[in-house]
Amino acid sequence: MLMLNGECEAASQDDLWRSDLKTLGYAAQSAQEPLAPFSFERREPRANDVAIDILYCGVCHSDLHTARNDWGVTLYPAVPGHEIVGRVSAVGDDVADFVVGDTVAVGCMVDSCKECDQCHQGEEQYCREGNTQTYGGQDRVDGTPTFGGYSKHIVVRDEFVLRVPENLDLARVAPLVCAGITTYSPLRTWNVGPGSRVAIVGMGGLGHMGIKLAVGLGAHVTVISRTEAKKDDALELGAHEFLASSDEGAMALAQASFDVILDTVPVKHDINPYMPLLDVDGTLVIVGQVGPLAEPITVPMIFGRRRVAGSLIGGIAETQEMLDFCGRMNILPECETIAMGEINEAYERMEKSDVRYRFVIDMATLS
Amino acid sequence: MLMLNGECEAASQDDLWRSDLKTLGYAAQSAQEPLAPFSFERREPRANDVAIDILYCGVCHSDLHTARNDWGVTLYPAVPGHEIVGRVSAVGDDVADFVVGDTVAVGCMVDSCKECDQCHQGEEQYCREGNTQTYGGQDRVDGTPTFGGYSKHIVVRDEFVLRVPENLDLARVAPLVCAGITTYSPLRTWNVGPGSRVAIVGMGGLGHMGIKLAVGLGAHVTVISRTEAKKDDALELGAHEFLASSDEGAMALAQASFDVILDTVPVKHDINPYMPLLDVDGTLVIVGQVGPLAEPITVPMIFGRRRVAGSLIGGIAETQEMLDFCGRMNILPECETIAMGEINEAYERMEKSDVRYRFVIDMATLS
Repeated sequence: MLMLNGECEAASQDDLWRSDLKTLGYAAQSAQEPLAPFSFERREPRANDVAIDILYCGVCHSDLHTARNDWGVTLYPAVPGHEIVGRVSAVGDDVADFVVGDTVAVGCMVDSCKECDQCHQGEEQYCREGNTQTYGGQDRVDGTPTFGGYSKHIVVRDEFVLRVPENLDLARVAPLVCAGITTYSPLRTWNVGPGSRVAIVGMGGLGHMGIKLAVGLGAHVTVISRTEAKKDDALELGAHEFLASSDEGAMALAQASFDVILDTVPVKHDINPYMPLLDVDGTLVIVGQVGPLAEPITVPMIFGRRRVAGSLIGGIAETQEMLDFCGRMNILPECETIAMGEINEAYERMEKSDVRYRFVIDMATLS
Repeated sequence: MLMLNGECEAASQDDLWRSDLKTLGYAAQSAQEPLAPFSFERREPRANDVAIDILYCGVCHSDLHTARNDWGVTLYPAVPGHEIVGRVSAVGDDVADFVVGDTVAVGCMVDSCKECDQCHQGEEQYCREGNTQTYGGQDRVDGTPTFGGYSKHIVVRDEFVLRVPENLDLARVAPLVCAGITTYSPLRTWNVGPGSRVAIVGMGGLGHMGIKLAVGLGAHVTVISRTEAKKDDALELGAHEFLASSDEGAMALAQASFDVILDTVPVKHDINPYMPLLDVDGTLVIVGQVGPLAEPITVPMIFGRRRVAGSLIGGIAETQEMLDFCGRMNILPECETIAMGEINEAYERMEKSDVRYRFVIDMATLS
């Protein structure tokens, strides 16, 4: 049972919660259909649950891949959205850390086993049983499908609910809990801080957050892009330098000059031009492309002990750390706010990289 | 000027040294010709040089690649050999650490700038100016070409001369300074010790040393090979387990079970079957193949923060540490001793992997 806002105490909490189960969202009913309004019920709440009225939801490339079944695993109806910001509307009896009215966020995970070594280390994203995805997953207790944040309400286990710093502009917070943590976590894993030399490859939703977060952490940040077209934007976002990968002379001069390269390119590509840019023991971290890379040449790896790694979002504690860090530094993504009804057009624009740099749905537009 | 053995003090040291410059070796005169006897002079000695009478020289795959110009950079005549064991025959005035009669070894490097950050950290293999290779390189002072250990004598800067522990069987020491350090260094870089779970892929000259060294460091060691053909050999060399990569069930059971995979396969291959065998944050280290790998799939990298790295031999201090460790643990490669005149046949057999596991030339057979 959930405890509701004090004003409602006269009514039966069970009754109130039951009415809360009903919600409205946007769903894909098949890979061929555009997203459309969808009425559904959230799962039965539990004592450790937090109910959230969703205010904003960011639009991630994964949403589009899921809606269109690009990975072949989509269950329909599919309600995407894992960059969620909202207000707590009710909490279960066992919830101690949140009260009604709190501003909170939910990212890509809504549960995990919480008992394996990875969960104990705060790395729920690598849970040995697999974490429960915010959408397209299956509730660990009742087996119901999980539906994402393109909706008015959501119910989430308290340990997967994040606090949003009060000073941040709520309309821009949502992308932090996916694009933000996806770039923050590898920067922290590979010890980026003052003095670090970081390059960002790819300047979309992930890349532009990578620039801001790496700059915020004190690194010297270079954006690498094929041509000079994105130079002004990169510098405006805070990058210290810009390197056009089509400029052979500049690339030669930049050899062995980075500790970390954050590769946010979301399609199959060739990492060979970037590897020699790493210093000895440097790491190129793939966070964009889920699939094949072009054949890598091992020469720069062997003759410099260079590494290639992957990284997946971040754990809950680290995501909270990132939100608090962004609060202190006032770091926010560049967002374009859209109405829920504009989502299909937004997908089309996203496919053409026609967004600077993340769409955020204002959920007040859904009724 | 070099200081010679006390017995010779009556003669002019300069005269003696000049006679020492002349030596006999085996060289390739072109990519098409077999190796054949070759008389040549070693470079002018300097005050910080050590002159060595070579007793044994190991045969590395790089020797064959160089002789046949497989990498397109061979300068002829080419005298291969960078797994050298011998006795000090003379030392320069400034040499404090070696005396005539010392048993010593020389590996893949004979010099580096000694002034850059990498050299200062004892990572001369990654010297910013490039280290001076034992053969096929160019002396940093007089510009003469370097000739390797398929010869009776060599002159080496003292800081690149290694001490051989007295207890080790000299006929088997030579491969330690290439095959040994190439596998020891990544094991140390990735903190292999008691409790570590290490897999070795490829069981040739490098792989068989990887087994022995990882076992010696206290790791639980599994050999991965396509079929069961090498199982008995692997266990005899000390491996605790054997995993046939053609056994899908066994491969599935082995997922996420290794901290480090040492990949010693010397040709283009597919690392995708191995990557999921790494635990979260595990690393697959490439030490065999210098060139392309098949297209890697990023899924196991991203969904487990797994890494792929390369590693090149090791620094001088680490090579000495490895030799001392092998002395304490009595770790030696499995060798087949050959006469210098058998080198061309040995190359042919090496190409068919018909050696257990390293050829070593007895240099007494060259006269």
